[in-house]
Amino acid sequence: MGDVIGELVAGLPAGAVVTDAAVAASYAQDMAGFSAGGQPLAVVTARSTEDVQHVMRTATAHRVPVVPQGARTGLSGGANAVDGCLVLSLVKMDRILEIDPVERVAVVEPGVVNAVLSRAVGKHGLSYPPDPSSWEQCTIGGNIATGAGGLCCVKYGVTAEYVLGLDVVLADGRLLRTGRRTAKGVAGYDLTRLFVGSEGTLGVVVGAVLALRPAPPPHLVLAAEFPSAAAAGEAVCAIMAAGHVPSLLELMDGTTVRAVNAMARMGLPETTEALLLAAFDTPDPAADLAAVGALCTAAGATEVVPASDPAESELLLQARRLSLTALEKVSTAMLIDDVCVPRGRLGEMLDGVAAIAGTYGLTIGVCAHAGDGNTHPVVCFDRHDADETRRARESFDAIMALGLSLGGTITGEHGVGLLKRDWLAREAGPTGMELQRGIKAVFDPLGLLNPGKVL
Amino acid sequence: MGDVIGELVAGLPAGAVVTDAAVAASYAQDMAGFSAGGQPLAVVTARSTEDVQHVMRTATAHRVPVVPQGARTGLSGGANAVDGCLVLSLVKMDRILEIDPVERVAVVEPGVVNAVLSRAVGKHGLSYPPDPSSWEQCTIGGNIATGAGGLCCVKYGVTAEYVLGLDVVLADGRLLRTGRRTAKGVAGYDLTRLFVGSEGTLGVVVGAVLALRPAPPPHLVLAAEFPSAAAAGEAVCAIMAAGHVPSLLELMDGTTVRAVNAMARMGLPETTEALLLAAFDTPDPAADLAAVGALCTAAGATEVVPASDPAESELLLQARRLSLTALEKVSTAMLIDDVCVPRGRLGEMLDGVAAIAGTYGLTIGVCAHAGDGNTHPVVCFDRHDADETRRARESFDAIMALGLSLGGTITGEHGVGLLKRDWLAREAGPTGMELQRGIKAVFDPLGLLNPGKVL
Ligand SMILES: Cc1cc2nc3c(=O)[nH]c(=O)nc-3n(C[C@H](O)[C@H](O)[C@H](O)COP(=O)(O)OP(=O)(O)OC[C@H]3O[C@@H](n4cnc5c(N)ncnc54)[C@H](O)[C@@H]3O)c2cc1C
Ligand SMILES: Cc1cc2nc3c(=O)[nH]c(=O)nc-3n(C[C@H](O)[C@H](O)[C@H](O)COP(=O)(O)OP(=O)(O)OC[C@H]3O[C@@H](n4cnc5c(N)ncnc54)[C@H](O)[C@@H]3O)c2cc1C
Repeated sequence: MGDVIGELVAGLPAGAVVTDAAVAASYAQDMAGFSAGGQPLAVVTARSTEDVQHVMRTATAHRVPVVPQGARTGLSGGANAVDGCLVLSLVKMDRILEIDPVERVAVVEPGVVNAVLSRAVGKHGLSYPPDPSSWEQCTIGGNIATGAGGLCCVKYGVTAEYVLGLDVVLADGRLLRTGRRTAKGVAGYDLTRLFVGSEGTLGVVVGAVLALRPAPPPHLVLAAEFPSAAAAGEAVCAIMAAGHVPSLLELMDGTTVRAVNAMARMGLPETTEALLLAAFDTPDPAADLAAVGALCTAAGATEVVPASDPAESELLLQARRLSLTALEKVSTAMLIDDVCVPRGRLGEMLDGVAAIAGTYGLTIGVCAHAGDGNTHPVVCFDRHDADETRRARESFDAIMALGLSLGGTITGEHGVGLLKRDWLAREAGPTGMELQRGIKAVFDPLGLLNPGKVL
Repeated sequence: MGDVIGELVAGLPAGAVVTDAAVAASYAQDMAGFSAGGQPLAVVTARSTEDVQHVMRTATAHRVPVVPQGARTGLSGGANAVDGCLVLSLVKMDRILEIDPVERVAVVEPGVVNAVLSRAVGKHGLSYPPDPSSWEQCTIGGNIATGAGGLCCVKYGVTAEYVLGLDVVLADGRLLRTGRRTAKGVAGYDLTRLFVGSEGTLGVVVGAVLALRPAPPPHLVLAAEFPSAAAAGEAVCAIMAAGHVPSLLELMDGTTVRAVNAMARMGLPETTEALLLAAFDTPDPAADLAAVGALCTAAGATEVVPASDPAESELLLQARRLSLTALEKVSTAMLIDDVCVPRGRLGEMLDGVAAIAGTYGLTIGVCAHAGDGNTHPVVCFDRHDADETRRARESFDAIMALGLSLGGTITGEHGVGLLKRDWLAREAGPTGMELQRGIKAVFDPLGLLNPGKVL
């Protein structure tokens, strides 16, 4: 193994390789619960494509596993180290190489932070829509590798829709260029989309051509309080069936509302069992809010509060933004699920999660990208209590089973990683798994890239 | 071989298998020029997933190649028969199984004609955006297999963006279900998108879950006449750089304008070297047309004609719709290219094509989905003139070389098929080709599905 490190160091800039065990251990895991990371042999910070190629060539020569890492905000254990691996951090490859308002593309390195890119393209009157709530930390490389979503995806789509082409270093160190920098293109199999969501198991993303859109006008937000999850779910269905195109349609369940209330004294009525937030960035958002407000009232909303300006809109969104922090205060640990169901089944999903919380004697708050049916049940538990911890893990699985039974998927945007590996087989079936394993073997025959993840 | 037919017939409804040589020959090819089809052993018309499974099982048992076919409107030879193959026609699997306005999805069989689906979802106030010009003939299965685009894709994206999940019969007859029917989902590798654009080489699409959008308001169209392709290209850049989102942005070069004029006496000035058509389906399309009209004038347009109602808009679009028919009259055959370039290079592309037309002594008219940089140079030639035919083929290649040199792709929407196979290797490079061949081997180890296409 001494060889590996020596060879790595020899081909990389000074300081790129860190073998200090304590430092290496600090790169062991992402932000997922229940998925312990292993002890890396070393952490390598790449600053160029050539660095990444050198790492992969050396790893292949010595048969050492490599775990690519962005900002480690992942919620599925996808970036977790395995024992004896090289952690390959891409955060220092963080240059925005090009922003082109005519082609509406940006060319970036993988370590660019999502919010940094958003602000940079904003200066050109453009937007990069995928906006995970972790946007101030997470990297574009991580977003691509997980297929990240976010709040505005209900209108603008997810990461997959915005990746036109990629530069990828393969397991053996070869550089592959996929896709294109034109608006359209169908030459050959869509390798670009195959890498999106592949969680570092097929190659290391070292560059991306991203599609941009003209920046939308500022949005206006409406908040509606419902006496039940079912009523809020009905409102979501009515809004979508009526042909509205909200730029955001978020939902918080009663548990989450109460947690936020307790923390931030927002004065939300304790009887609220679901809070729906809708936004429009259309030319006349007030008119859209009025129409949607009426649909909420018809579905049983007890109170409907439309903002009249951007400042008020931000205030209303505060509740949603504080959800995770507020639920964090409920206990010592949390486990964030990511089940996506047909939006018509949202009410059932939320009621089902409440039932699961009861069964397992746990607090489970749900916030959801309701317009997409993408729910985030947050299981709160005390990590020092072994029995509660076991129940938390079981409830997490029960939630995935519920999601699948409602025609959903186990992961809307966080990915499979380590946490949901066993569940992927249930969703994809034996034929789907066999083909995915076949693809993995084509790209990474030695199984060195992020082993034990996804498949 | 008698065995194959016997086994096929035994497992399929009466009349499904046709072995008559003349009938079979009539299924030999799609609408691409320069790509002769082989003589099929038989034509099998499937009416169910089970039919398709039986065909593939039988084909695998006897090692007989299978060529899936939709409406055979393809322009790359992708649906062409190979000698001794089974043509597997999907056109009779043409049921729309579900249209759901809450989930905004349609569930369809592959043989549904694009326009039939469009009209059906229109009744629910929804739209299925991808609108190839062949929409009254082409099938959703063919659209998925080619990754079809169309006129409104500049605003609404191409087929890949609208395929949420697929049912696919694999080469060995197994049924695979990919993707989801939820708005989002990232569980495992994106097999759905891998099938989109795979031109029948990885599996036979027997069902699809498609995303729908609310139907947009009626659009208004503007026509602008330019004295040069460069000026029209500049206008396109100015429109996009200014943040406009046209629902259609089409361009016809001088050759095409003159052909249309000659056929339909539209009274377009013969000095027009490029005609740009822009449409908006925004809440205030007239305002958008005014802004875009000003940009066109600034870029050198000699005349700008905004429509004031949908009827006038249709009239303006007539010229575009007649383009192919008009160019068809110029000679006895045509070859339609599909090079997509960065939109900033459109002017150069058109000027380059004009130069190629001069070099080879041919008429080449260009129409283009200008907003996407997707050009369709139409090479007109006399198929009875061997030398002209050779020059046509050479000019077709010269156009692809030009497109690649401008940073483009050899195919924006028509696919690789037979016609552009040699060119794919140039665009994808050896590593890209190796990986694509590896994927093909995973899905179709015996190489029975549409052999000789794409790779
Ligand atoms: C508070 C909070 C809110 C969140 N909100 C959202 C949300 O709204 N939507 C959402 O989708 N997610 C959300 N997430 C999850 C997480 O932020 C996303 O998954 C994000 O895309 C991860 O990016 P990262 O840079 O942190 O990647 P990491 O966590 O470091 O890695 C994620 C995966 O990508 C791989 N990877 C990273 N970089 C590369 C590369 N260059 N090449 C190949 N593989 C690579 C890793 O191996 C790993 O499998 C949230 C997380 C937190 C903590
Ligand atoms: C006048 C005209 C205008 C056109 N305009 C456009 C345009 O604007 N945009 C555009 O993108 N294209 C356009 N095309 C090209 C063509 O219409 C598209 O490629 C269309 O998607 C083909 O559909 P099809 O049903 O005719 O498929 P076919 O031509 O029958 O087949 C196309 C490919 O798909 C495969 N295939 C078909 N069905 C299946 C299935 N169920 N499972 C697996 N593989 C299958 C075939 O093997 C073949 O490789 C045009 C063609 C014409 C003639």
